[in-house]
Amino acid sequence: MTLTAAAPAGVAVRRGPGRPRDTDLDPQIIAAVLDLIDAEEEVTVSRVVERGGVSRAALYRRWPSLTTLIAAALDVGRTVPPELPLDGDLRETLFTALIGSPTSIDASGYSEARFRQRIRLVMADRALQRAYWESHVSRRRGPVERALRAGVDRGILRHDLDVEAAFDAIAGAAYYQSIVRGEPLESPATRSRLAAAFDITWRGMVVS
Amino acid sequence: MTLTAAAPAGVAVRRGPGRPRDTDLDPQIIAAVLDLIDAEEEVTVSRVVERGGVSRAALYRRWPSLTTLIAAALDVGRTVPPELPLDGDLRETLFTALIGSPTSIDASGYSEARFRQRIRLVMADRALQRAYWESHVSRRRGPVERALRAGVDRGILRHDLDVEAAFDAIAGAAYYQSIVRGEPLESPATRSRLAAAFDITWRGMVVS
Repeated sequence: MTLTAAAPAGVAVRRGPGRPRDTDLDPQIIAAVLDLIDAEEEVTVSRVVERGGVSRAALYRRWPSLTTLIAAALDVGRTVPPELPLDGDLRETLFTALIGSPTSIDASGYSEARFRQRIRLVMADRALQRAYWESHVSRRRGPVERALRAGVDRGILRHDLDVEAAFDAIAGAAYYQSIVRGEPLESPATRSRLAAAFDITWRGMVVS
Repeated sequence: MTLTAAAPAGVAVRRGPGRPRDTDLDPQIIAAVLDLIDAEEEVTVSRVVERGGVSRAALYRRWPSLTTLIAAALDVGRTVPPELPLDGDLRETLFTALIGSPTSIDASGYSEARFRQRIRLVMADRALQRAYWESHVSRRRGPVERALRAGVDRGILRHDLDVEAAFDAIAGAAYYQSIVRGEPLESPATRSRLAAAFDITWRGMVVS
């Protein structure tokens, strides 16, 4: 993967206040981590330093821990999706945001190989898993969760809807395809199963 | 984990016809694989042979490939759940079978550590993932899928219900907790989120 010139979102906030600006090193370090991840090599500080051509000191100045660095690297190419329209056809809005394309829910900006690597890494390291959840995945859920809450306010969705659980059921069905069934999200059978799972969840959310 | 004397389900069928019966070696080989998995060591034929104290020939006689052996080892302690009652309170029956206890959906007979290892192994090896799905996970879904189909026949669930998608949505929500949120299935917040996800899915399945 080629890194674009722009530093990935979230990099800047990890730099201490008053540090000299040397943003060019950030993409270089992240690229080194991604090279290691894609090569299925263990990511260690020594390897990042060697491959990235940076000093240990430069690395530690930027990243408080290897865990936050790996979490940020896993997030490269993924962005917090834009806010969703809060009026209009809510079902259509949600379907497009969540199931609209094979990459909607999770693989956004990702190759499948990197998705599989990401799951392996987080299952091997609970601290990384929590860091990745808190600083990345949970933030990406925001627009859909706000659209769901607006749907409750508009009287379309049940007033007692558990918005987080609704998201988990829809997204969980997609993860199930990749992780348990081992089927690519773009296969027609998978697309149709996900559409059916979305339909079940939608029916269970609306005011009847 | 201590292996019981009984060979795990599925072991016998992989032995070629007419072979001498030497079933004692099966648990020994499986135990060697599980030791390696639990120690987070790569499972190779050499290591299984060494740790299991069996010959390569004995290993290959029993298991056509390392993949089927690992898949069987991952399934130790897990059994196809019993058939569910097809009359009675379907919602209650399904809830108990799927969400009733922290280990209902997936971790049945498993430590969480082994669950995490299983996910890492299948994400690293698509052939293993498909073998494990086809010979193990998909079979364990049977009783719930049959109960869902009976619910359609009884007129409780929608006549056009996609039973597989319904299962995926409920089970997917549980996988999402472990794999994406990184939360233990027994935590109260997780239990309550799973109950809410089940409720949404149930409402979406029933004839309205």
